[in-house]
Amino acid sequence: MKQLDALLNPKSVAVIGASADPTKTSGRPVSYLIKHGFSGAIYPVNPKAAEIQGLTCYADVEALPEAPDVGLVLLNAKRSVAAVRSLAKLGCKAAVVLASGFAEAGEDGQDLQAELKEAAGSMRILGPNTIGLVNLSAGIPLSASGALEVSDLPAGHVAVVSQSGGILGALLSRAAGRGIGLSSLISTSNEVDLEVSDFIDYLVDDENTKVIALYLESIRNPQRFREVAIRARDAGKPLVVFKIGRSEAGANAASSHTGALAGEDRVYDAFFRELGVIRVNTFDEFLDIPAVLVAGRKLAGRRVAVLTSTGGAGTLIADSLGVTDFDTPAPDIDTAEKLRALQGDTPTALDRNPIDVTLAGLQPDLLRQAIRILLESDSYDALVVIIGSSGLAMPDLVVSAIQDCLSVNDKPVLAYVSPYAPDTLKRLNSGGIPGFSSPESCSAVLEALYFTGQPLLSSASAAPGVQLPNLETLPGGSLDEASAKTLFSQAGIKVPQSKVVTTRDEAVQAARELGEPVVLKIMDANLLHKSDIGGVALFLNADTIGERFDKMIADVESHIGRCPDQFLVEAMIAGGHELILGANRDALGTALLLGAGGVTAELFKDTALCMLPETGALTLDQARAMMQKLTTWPLLDGYRGSVHRDTEALAQAIVNFSALIIALGDRVVTSEINPLFVLPEGQGVVAADAVLVLDEKSAGDRSDG
Amino acid sequence: MKQLDALLNPKSVAVIGASADPTKTSGRPVSYLIKHGFSGAIYPVNPKAAEIQGLTCYADVEALPEAPDVGLVLLNAKRSVAAVRSLAKLGCKAAVVLASGFAEAGEDGQDLQAELKEAAGSMRILGPNTIGLVNLSAGIPLSASGALEVSDLPAGHVAVVSQSGGILGALLSRAAGRGIGLSSLISTSNEVDLEVSDFIDYLVDDENTKVIALYLESIRNPQRFREVAIRARDAGKPLVVFKIGRSEAGANAASSHTGALAGEDRVYDAFFRELGVIRVNTFDEFLDIPAVLVAGRKLAGRRVAVLTSTGGAGTLIADSLGVTDFDTPAPDIDTAEKLRALQGDTPTALDRNPIDVTLAGLQPDLLRQAIRILLESDSYDALVVIIGSSGLAMPDLVVSAIQDCLSVNDKPVLAYVSPYAPDTLKRLNSGGIPGFSSPESCSAVLEALYFTGQPLLSSASAAPGVQLPNLETLPGGSLDEASAKTLFSQAGIKVPQSKVVTTRDEAVQAARELGEPVVLKIMDANLLHKSDIGGVALFLNADTIGERFDKMIADVESHIGRCPDQFLVEAMIAGGHELILGANRDALGTALLLGAGGVTAELFKDTALCMLPETGALTLDQARAMMQKLTTWPLLDGYRGSVHRDTEALAQAIVNFSALIIALGDRVVTSEINPLFVLPEGQGVVAADAVLVLDEKSAGDRSDG
Repeated sequence: MKQLDALLNPKSVAVIGASADPTKTSGRPVSYLIKHGFSGAIYPVNPKAAEIQGLTCYADVEALPEAPDVGLVLLNAKRSVAAVRSLAKLGCKAAVVLASGFAEAGEDGQDLQAELKEAAGSMRILGPNTIGLVNLSAGIPLSASGALEVSDLPAGHVAVVSQSGGILGALLSRAAGRGIGLSSLISTSNEVDLEVSDFIDYLVDDENTKVIALYLESIRNPQRFREVAIRARDAGKPLVVFKIGRSEAGANAASSHTGALAGEDRVYDAFFRELGVIRVNTFDEFLDIPAVLVAGRKLAGRRVAVLTSTGGAGTLIADSLGVTDFDTPAPDIDTAEKLRALQGDTPTALDRNPIDVTLAGLQPDLLRQAIRILLESDSYDALVVIIGSSGLAMPDLVVSAIQDCLSVNDKPVLAYVSPYAPDTLKRLNSGGIPGFSSPESCSAVLEALYFTGQPLLSSASAAPGVQLPNLETLPGGSLDEASAKTLFSQAGIKVPQSKVVTTRDEAVQAARELGEPVVLKIMDANLLHKSDIGGVALFLNADTIGERFDKMIADVESHIGRCPDQFLVEAMIAGGHELILGANRDALGTALLLGAGGVTAELFKDTALCMLPETGALTLDQARAMMQKLTTWPLLDGYRGSVHRDTEALAQAIVNFSALIIALGDRVVTSEINPLFVLPEGQGVVAADAVLVLDEKSAGDRSDG
Repeated sequence: MKQLDALLNPKSVAVIGASADPTKTSGRPVSYLIKHGFSGAIYPVNPKAAEIQGLTCYADVEALPEAPDVGLVLLNAKRSVAAVRSLAKLGCKAAVVLASGFAEAGEDGQDLQAELKEAAGSMRILGPNTIGLVNLSAGIPLSASGALEVSDLPAGHVAVVSQSGGILGALLSRAAGRGIGLSSLISTSNEVDLEVSDFIDYLVDDENTKVIALYLESIRNPQRFREVAIRARDAGKPLVVFKIGRSEAGANAASSHTGALAGEDRVYDAFFRELGVIRVNTFDEFLDIPAVLVAGRKLAGRRVAVLTSTGGAGTLIADSLGVTDFDTPAPDIDTAEKLRALQGDTPTALDRNPIDVTLAGLQPDLLRQAIRILLESDSYDALVVIIGSSGLAMPDLVVSAIQDCLSVNDKPVLAYVSPYAPDTLKRLNSGGIPGFSSPESCSAVLEALYFTGQPLLSSASAAPGVQLPNLETLPGGSLDEASAKTLFSQAGIKVPQSKVVTTRDEAVQAARELGEPVVLKIMDANLLHKSDIGGVALFLNADTIGERFDKMIADVESHIGRCPDQFLVEAMIAGGHELILGANRDALGTALLLGAGGVTAELFKDTALCMLPETGALTLDQARAMMQKLTTWPLLDGYRGSVHRDTEALAQAIVNFSALIIALGDRVVTSEINPLFVLPEGQGVVAADAVLVLDEKSAGDRSDG
């Protein structure tokens, strides 16, 4: 923490490789430090200059008069490594390395980056390949971004941490242009040392920061991200994320449906959602939403009043809110009465929403009173005030009229500016009133406010109440179906009665013992797609299974040139509703997937996802929430007079499955029950197939390593 | 047309009710006419003034020295009617009536509006309740909109017609602020006479207009809209629509699934799509998309080159394009070679896309050559040039570098401006280069360009080859199932064998004759939801149908207190894939719906919609296109080794159904085949139920009326 404070709030900064020419990229940092009023010591380092912009220039790091808090390194990649080594030796607390040519540039660069890390020792590094950082609260720019040329950088309460350096200048300039105040702006880029999570951790304790906006390319250490995200949430500082790489996540070759999840963008969706992190969909929302959150007002419901002095825009906003499922109800009688009293003789219909004061004209006092009435009304959870052309003539009056009412309560108040008026938008935002020029932004920010107001399903879980078998002895690799089912059964998930057979006679005998109908399947831990190679037959009995047994051997051999030795004869489950329950581990953790089965549902990809906690199990409530997210949930719930399914047994099976998968921890590669049959109420659920793939390392190997 | 020319290009304008105070709303129009340089005669009319802004003022309309081309009426509703009457009498060609208090204000207002229409006689009226119009090409403002206060109104080639008056000022100011030139801007509002379609019709022939943007609340006369939309398309002038009222269109109580379509917003989607009209999703796109279309460049494919001088923004744009299914392939070898040759010794990797010239710096000449190479490359269909902070210092150089390359070919070139730079955006647009500040806009405009480049499915149809029965004698109201099936069968749609019965014995006899299994259904033209009241039984035979017959009578009586006299015994269709085929007529015309049947598909609302032409029938190609739009299409097409369905018979059934519905014309209220069973290849399709509801008026009544 102290080291990060030295980086964000340095008392002294050495600029290694500073140029005397302020128009050059390497000349900018010293010039920006002076321009934006840095009050600490600035030590330019450059062997070819004696003085830079009036400051004494030092020949090399060794010549510095003290160990600086921060070394800002502007040299090329190779020379940066040497400078970092010198800075570390001198006792400098943190270095910012701007050079590219490290890990992003291929193998040689990766080696150089490792060297950089080694050279830094215990000194912290931001970068390399970063554009640096700007502490706007304290007026300290440690960056070469041309966006710092502007003189007006409004300080505020939104911190931005970006993995992309290139986008930093755009965000700085866009926030300034819109009057959205930032506390600090940090580009982490290659993250050889300090990464996004370190800064979240720091900013949670930064009194100037109320909202943290993250521009992400990937998450290097999801577990750490999870911890700091929870810390931010507990501190009441919302995280807002724009994540790119959305389109790269394509379909992956994988051994089961669940496996296809790996690397999919919707796993990120689940990951963020469960941490209460707001994921934005458009680049504009990346600033729009923090601008609203920073106001700290709470949205308790979805009823929005629209107050307008220009009819067309009011309708436009109401329509846009309606498209995103916000309500714009007419005022209740009491509220309408109060509004009417405002208007005197003007025959405006104020019993509608949008509440249109066009005819009364835009009088700030009228506006003030109308806002107060609408905020106090029990009919509304939020207010959008529309500013038309008439408001442009007196932006300050409008802004102050709105400001005067903010103390009434903490319902959100937004402004929508109908004409082209970038200055008015800037003035609104600077004045603490989130202002927007697009109707869709109004809806998006309200949606984000609504999301932050909803309680998260507890991610800690109750004791699962499941007796798990000893998992230590499980071998690595793919379990065969019988072994996987035995394990799932021990974890409390019902499986059909079955026999493993190797000959036709044994199969007939098994069918006789199990009673009809039965299913015959090949059994081989390495063959996961049995149906596709002719390895599954349904509706068999003791009379028919023999012949089918021989045919299956022939079919499978014709498909893959061999047939496994073992077969499973299993009681066939009838009348079940088909689901898929699976788990897949990737870099973000283990995702649990519940999906509708059968070909129709498969085409619609009707699935619900959640990330599993590290210990314990999902709760029954979490399991129920997943079930209810399925579009086909009504089919479990008696849709159109159909049979009610045993949804409580399903919830328990999800909980039990989660407990097993969590207990297996990072040994899990992928697991899937497909189909999981949900029987009518009171009859439970049955896992008709089972896949479990574990890491090849045995538990023993792992505890040694 | 001449009359509209008099309205849009008047030689003389009388301003009735002009105030001498230019700060008053009624003082603005004269002031704006002078300010924006109207060169014709201006006649203020006001009994209380002798002179207004240096112009002779007339006491009343009768006192005018000539019949003006346009009377701009600023009086209140009641007095506007009198003024319009006087203007018409004088021989004025068109009046613009700004007053509200007409049809939008309830019953009294509706009466007043009718009076206004009568008073106008053959004189054309724009409004009432309009904010007027602005002809920017000729510098003629006939409006009181405060947005005309600005002195710089860039003329260009986008015409905007809006049914909302209030939004007009916002659009005028936003277009001006962004440097998007407009040809004219018209608010039609109450449309007592002139409506949106009249102006489309006019603008198709207006040489200053290349793109027509429509802000719509509803379409009063869809048939006329269709005609002018086709005229616009044939003239190569794209129509771009923003339509509000999206959220009002909720679920309607209706007699069948298809009936629920009435008034649904997606019927508008189908209506616009089939006319080649671009429907925009966000308000920003309402100007973004015309700004691109007006450039007149063609997008032939989905491969986009991104040329950037700032790394982060390039990745952002590529990611956003990827999300919307555009490709950003790396340059081919030849193109990469040419790019490398540009760079000299700079070690930038130009074999990737985004093509990043960050290190080379933003040199206009380099930019010019790179643009030329990318436009000439066969690897790309379009180019997005990213302008970073470095470009802001020399916007004109960047703009002219891009402009210089536009003649290479007609591939689209867009600019994305990464930092906050409204002035640069304005300069780009004014310079004919569509510029955007949001990544999502770049994708949206490319999508619109792609849509306009795709051929429309011909809406004219081949002779259907269907022999239709005599439809003249059909009664109004709802046909019973047997009658509807007879009709559908005559139109070439196969139905199951069936018998109408009234007694248990007849039912048993019918089951024996038809062979098992059979279906038993109540038959009553007024009972459309037979299943819900126990009026359908499946899997019956001669042995079981008797008892089931008695039970059905009891069941239906217990549900609705009576049981119809007639029953249908029908051969049951096994092994069919279940679809819904329906048609519904509403104000926009007749929509044909093809939907997936069965409960699972129903939950996903898997449907395809198209609007039927007025005559003929859909073509087989159109029918196939609808089928293939269904998410469950693969289930008809042999998905995962399942049986191939008789999709050709399905296409023919859709064509036949469309021919029947089109022949019935505006007599159709709603019609539905649910389920329509699609049998395996070669076995055809069968309509297992049939609903047809016609207008209550008989054909005879109609031809009289």
